[in-house]
Amino acid sequence: MRIFLAITLLFLNTSSFAQDESLLQYVKPIIGTDKMGHTYPGATVPFGAVQLSPETDTLSYEVDGHYNKDIYKYCAGYQYDDKTIVGFSHTHFSGTGHSDLGDFLIMPTIGKLQLNPGTADHPESGFRSGYAHANEVADADYYKVLLDKYKILAELTATTRVGFHQYTFPKSDQVHIILDAVYGIYNYPDKNVWTYIRIENDTLITGYRQTTGWAKTRTVYFAMVFSKPFKEYGFQNGSKKEVYRGFWNKFNTSKNFPEMAGTQIRAYFDFKTEEGEKIRIKFAISPVSNFNALENLHTETPAWDFDAVKKRGQALWEQELSKIQITADKETKENFYTSMYHAFINPTIYMDVNGEYRGLDQNTHKATGFTNYTTFSLWDTHRALHPLFNIIQPGRNADMISSMLAHYDQSAEKMLPIWSNSANENWCMIGYHAVSVISDAVVKGNTGFDPNRALDACITMAKHENYDGLGYYMKLGYVPEDKNGSSVSNTLEYAYDDWCIAQMAQKLGRQEVYREFIKRSENYKNVYDPTSGFMRPRMSDGSFKKDFDVLNTDEPGFIEGNSWNYSLYVPHAPAELIKLMGGNKRFTPHLDSLFTMQLPDSFFANTEDITRDGIIGNYVHGNEPSHHVAYLYNWTDEPWKTQDHVRMILRKMYLPTPAGLSGNDDCGQMSAWYILSALGFYPVAPGSENYSLGSPAIDKATLHLENGKTFTVTAKNQGDKNVYVRKVMLNGKTLDRDYITHTEIMNGGELVFFMSYKHKK
Amino acid sequence: MRIFLAITLLFLNTSSFAQDESLLQYVKPIIGTDKMGHTYPGATVPFGAVQLSPETDTLSYEVDGHYNKDIYKYCAGYQYDDKTIVGFSHTHFSGTGHSDLGDFLIMPTIGKLQLNPGTADHPESGFRSGYAHANEVADADYYKVLLDKYKILAELTATTRVGFHQYTFPKSDQVHIILDAVYGIYNYPDKNVWTYIRIENDTLITGYRQTTGWAKTRTVYFAMVFSKPFKEYGFQNGSKKEVYRGFWNKFNTSKNFPEMAGTQIRAYFDFKTEEGEKIRIKFAISPVSNFNALENLHTETPAWDFDAVKKRGQALWEQELSKIQITADKETKENFYTSMYHAFINPTIYMDVNGEYRGLDQNTHKATGFTNYTTFSLWDTHRALHPLFNIIQPGRNADMISSMLAHYDQSAEKMLPIWSNSANENWCMIGYHAVSVISDAVVKGNTGFDPNRALDACITMAKHENYDGLGYYMKLGYVPEDKNGSSVSNTLEYAYDDWCIAQMAQKLGRQEVYREFIKRSENYKNVYDPTSGFMRPRMSDGSFKKDFDVLNTDEPGFIEGNSWNYSLYVPHAPAELIKLMGGNKRFTPHLDSLFTMQLPDSFFANTEDITRDGIIGNYVHGNEPSHHVAYLYNWTDEPWKTQDHVRMILRKMYLPTPAGLSGNDDCGQMSAWYILSALGFYPVAPGSENYSLGSPAIDKATLHLENGKTFTVTAKNQGDKNVYVRKVMLNGKTLDRDYITHTEIMNGGELVFFMSYKHKK
Repeated sequence: MRIFLAITLLFLNTSSFAQDESLLQYVKPIIGTDKMGHTYPGATVPFGAVQLSPETDTLSYEVDGHYNKDIYKYCAGYQYDDKTIVGFSHTHFSGTGHSDLGDFLIMPTIGKLQLNPGTADHPESGFRSGYAHANEVADADYYKVLLDKYKILAELTATTRVGFHQYTFPKSDQVHIILDAVYGIYNYPDKNVWTYIRIENDTLITGYRQTTGWAKTRTVYFAMVFSKPFKEYGFQNGSKKEVYRGFWNKFNTSKNFPEMAGTQIRAYFDFKTEEGEKIRIKFAISPVSNFNALENLHTETPAWDFDAVKKRGQALWEQELSKIQITADKETKENFYTSMYHAFINPTIYMDVNGEYRGLDQNTHKATGFTNYTTFSLWDTHRALHPLFNIIQPGRNADMISSMLAHYDQSAEKMLPIWSNSANENWCMIGYHAVSVISDAVVKGNTGFDPNRALDACITMAKHENYDGLGYYMKLGYVPEDKNGSSVSNTLEYAYDDWCIAQMAQKLGRQEVYREFIKRSENYKNVYDPTSGFMRPRMSDGSFKKDFDVLNTDEPGFIEGNSWNYSLYVPHAPAELIKLMGGNKRFTPHLDSLFTMQLPDSFFANTEDITRDGIIGNYVHGNEPSHHVAYLYNWTDEPWKTQDHVRMILRKMYLPTPAGLSGNDDCGQMSAWYILSALGFYPVAPGSENYSLGSPAIDKATLHLENGKTFTVTAKNQGDKNVYVRKVMLNGKTLDRDYITHTEIMNGGELVFFMSYKHKK
Repeated sequence: MRIFLAITLLFLNTSSFAQDESLLQYVKPIIGTDKMGHTYPGATVPFGAVQLSPETDTLSYEVDGHYNKDIYKYCAGYQYDDKTIVGFSHTHFSGTGHSDLGDFLIMPTIGKLQLNPGTADHPESGFRSGYAHANEVADADYYKVLLDKYKILAELTATTRVGFHQYTFPKSDQVHIILDAVYGIYNYPDKNVWTYIRIENDTLITGYRQTTGWAKTRTVYFAMVFSKPFKEYGFQNGSKKEVYRGFWNKFNTSKNFPEMAGTQIRAYFDFKTEEGEKIRIKFAISPVSNFNALENLHTETPAWDFDAVKKRGQALWEQELSKIQITADKETKENFYTSMYHAFINPTIYMDVNGEYRGLDQNTHKATGFTNYTTFSLWDTHRALHPLFNIIQPGRNADMISSMLAHYDQSAEKMLPIWSNSANENWCMIGYHAVSVISDAVVKGNTGFDPNRALDACITMAKHENYDGLGYYMKLGYVPEDKNGSSVSNTLEYAYDDWCIAQMAQKLGRQEVYREFIKRSENYKNVYDPTSGFMRPRMSDGSFKKDFDVLNTDEPGFIEGNSWNYSLYVPHAPAELIKLMGGNKRFTPHLDSLFTMQLPDSFFANTEDITRDGIIGNYVHGNEPSHHVAYLYNWTDEPWKTQDHVRMILRKMYLPTPAGLSGNDDCGQMSAWYILSALGFYPVAPGSENYSLGSPAIDKATLHLENGKTFTVTAKNQGDKNVYVRKVMLNGKTLDRDYITHTEIMNGGELVFFMSYKHKK
């Protein structure tokens, strides 16, 4: 790992891309922190294990025995509208629709010691503080805020595995820094299985937090060090589990007693400060042990220089952002580079500097030859994020697939990840789209792993009889609604995954597998109801379900998308789908209606994840099943509608403001859609070499590829009105097709779009 | 470790002690299983990490929401009077007065699947079964019982880290083997912090159990393998913590789903058996990981041969027992060798075959150069068990001290162990008698560790201001009762520990330390009240506490011993104590009264750990502070009273029957007292080279020492009436003193007692 570090440093010093301006200025981590984006404003490095960020009124917190039920809103711990900050914790998901993490809250305070967080309405009742956005800065790997109640300036930065805090205090002999191991995101009663804190000496604290929840059995170890020795310390232990206490009475454990274990523990550390004095904290985490956390801490942050850590973290961001350099207006640049920022947060590194990580079997494993990652929100991210990685982060993407294969090896169910959450499978959403990610990499020749072993894992997964109706699917050719939920969504997604396996098998020359799965990939036809013209739940006796509402998202048979949207989900065979649905004459109006129809109010009452702002007609950009839909016009006689619809979505669904994301960013999937669509091409069916052409929203983009080559996209004469593609030239030759291939990109070259205010034909 | 194993095997094959008969026949693990002994009848090897033993009506079990409060009785999981067995679990303390362990209960059943244990009164209501002692065999490393309800013959044996089960079934297609991770000893609500079970394949199961209780934060990992594949399996999950369930619904988790986590989990495995068919289970544990458990399993039990494992375990016992070969009557041999057996159960090995173990800091450590042990009940065992080890197990004793020093290094409090319980300090009882064990080893030249580093640790411990009144003790010369509990007991024990440190310092030539601590060792004088003639609680103002009952064990100032007994607790300075208490003329009658006085009924109502059977007058053999008392007559003019009192205690307090132990065996301390006293000498003050002579209860004993030498004790003409020593000869010369030295023993030689029915003078 140290070798890797050295190489990275070398790379940073001899940055290969000449650059006129810092791209960091266009990164606005605050984008998406209001309403539905579920992003966080805090500090993190690209794919970092630590995400050090403020918590506002999350109150997934107990206060007087009351628990906040509004957990959905607080997936990232921060909501822009909130008025108080309760502290800063070290782990956050970016853009998810379910909650977890929020490990180890730190809060600096002054005055009478309060170990209760207090309420948002009455911050004086606890240790939380008011704050103002005017006193807040959120940059890549840097967050700053003034805590009004205490006049303490809080600054945060991070390395991959270490959160670095810097607090500037007024003069006081009553400074208390709280380490709260009760706090967590979605912290329902009993979420904390166990926590343990050890005071090793007057600056070093270690311990761990073990939780159950979205991750069934998750443990985070830590090592925390203060820049200055504390004077005194103590604990509050709210655990009900303290059973054997008798002999603890031989110590006064209320103050300066060096260890505490339980489920509800808060520690505090007392200091005296001079005016303007800074106290710094390095807080390292590890999935394996306190020892490893301490090694992470010493390796990544050997010194106490906050600015140097921040500078280094921002240099890492600059390096990642500059992989695509664009020419565009400021707003587009802010959208684009913030999308790049959000796209390069997840998956997260899940491995210590010594290469050790916790496996799905809860044993300690050593990653050999790859960096181990977790936070795979694959139902979302297989669509555009991993394909984007295959272009611009192929090395990391191969490591992510190696991590998935390790997950498979460690899985009791012998499954590739569905949603990998810190050595746990949380089974979130449907399908098994690790096969899409693997297929896309294999087909595109990005195989820093054994592709045949990977294919074998995909096949095992695709034949798992007990998994979510898959046994029925294999027997009947569809998932019957009377036997298994989400039957239509499942059938359609299984069919797509089957096709992915077939593509990979073909590439690897395994014809028998190809034939088996290409046949299975046609199963989407089995849930198409020609009478209604929609995909429709089917029963095990072969009949279609009666009483069927094509608009209701809660309609049995579907998940995160109604039949209108899901009926278009055959990404691997749009042409066949169009034929099935009655040819272009019927299909194009169907698509048109999707974007224009008026939805009843009841739709919004029933639909999670999106608001009226996040919807165009019945097209829901905040939910992923429709992400390829705008590109389907390319298969009709009116491809110009792809062009204007893509531009409309780019314009309406992405704004450089706190409320600018129309739905959950979903670990970068929404951002990856933006990036690719803004560049003018999109992978409708990952597992295919092809990218469907849309309408570039930048004037020029230069992609610096890992292979040393450069691919540029130029959009001549593009603008808000000039959204139509008149002509496309690739490497000086007119392109007579509506797609480009991965090979064409990776070979380097020049793609030029000639734009117009008028569409062709 | 494998080298060690190979050497041991070699040793077993070329056993150096010619032996006429197997000593195993005299080992009766059933001794002490009735009433107060708190021993268990199950299978273990010497100092084994696994203690595989039946659980009877322990019911530290929940049944219909009811928890058994009678935990004291069930410290070892088994009570001889009970009528039913609920299963067989893998870890047990031997002879403790507080409860823990009982990890992973296995129960074979037949018929309708029942996952409730049922009640002792209604065994038909659950999976428990009746049994009869007539169908029970308990030998060293072998236990057998017929489970009446199912007609299943259960046999158990063990290696150091693996429990080996063998169940012989009738013909049935409804066999269920239950793996119960709910069960535990002292299993109050919330004892189970977390449990995790994984079905790896159709014979292998792994997982862990994490508990809080006597050990605050304890985790045991396991790997379990069946000799035959199961047909089906399933779980019962009684956890209330199942919060995020949604997506588990994509599996049918009720049957054949391969993993489960929670706090209240039972698993079952279904088999079909032929008449007389045997199903075997190997169950390995590890303090570190499932991986290590599996490695332990494969290393220690590579094959499926139950008889071979049993034979090897019994050979290990034979080897340990034959270190002292005695000539005596059968009853004495049963008492003696069962005492040897009980003395060589604890401390227990706490380390995997690869040398890894969990440290007190909850990190994984590797033991280099020593075997790591836990289960140090030092308040008990420093008195006779560790001194016995210095004679007959010096190598292990040095490793135990290395384990204590590792504990010290890992301790947040920078303390040597008080009561080491599986990577936890449970703080049970008082003083810090690790220093006694270390001093005894250093003074006796048994230093397979760095003695100066050990002394430094002892000094740090002895100056720990926050520990149990020690700050006051250092300031005032005694622990004041108004500031800290158990003040007299603490003061006396600290004074003895001080003397231990002084002896060690003197041996190591550290005179300054010697002078400091030899002075502190006189502090016992500060709680002697010349008015009452007793050790008496003293207040911080220097006055003695008013209202003082010398008989009450619950009297403030004392613990596990009233003032009558504790007033005699100055083991390091009996002559000075006698002088303090008014010289022989007053002291001898005081001692006499102790053994003859009549106690009021209220005494028994208030005193834990002992029954009327366990008491002689006011002398309580079941509580350790009096263990040296019978030997104090050697410092008076009437040493013959030591001889007849020791013999009286040997005779009355140790019987080769289930109820034969007069109090908790206390991890071998009671047994070690028996062994040494039966041999005719006893370490009144560990830390001294000297053993005070008593009255040997054997005709002859040969001690085979690790240094290759042999020390024999012959008691000529001894018998139940011939208990008095007329003359003692050491190596052919008359001994004109009432003690022998450790060096004299370790040099080898011959000690001959000439016994008589009349005492001298």
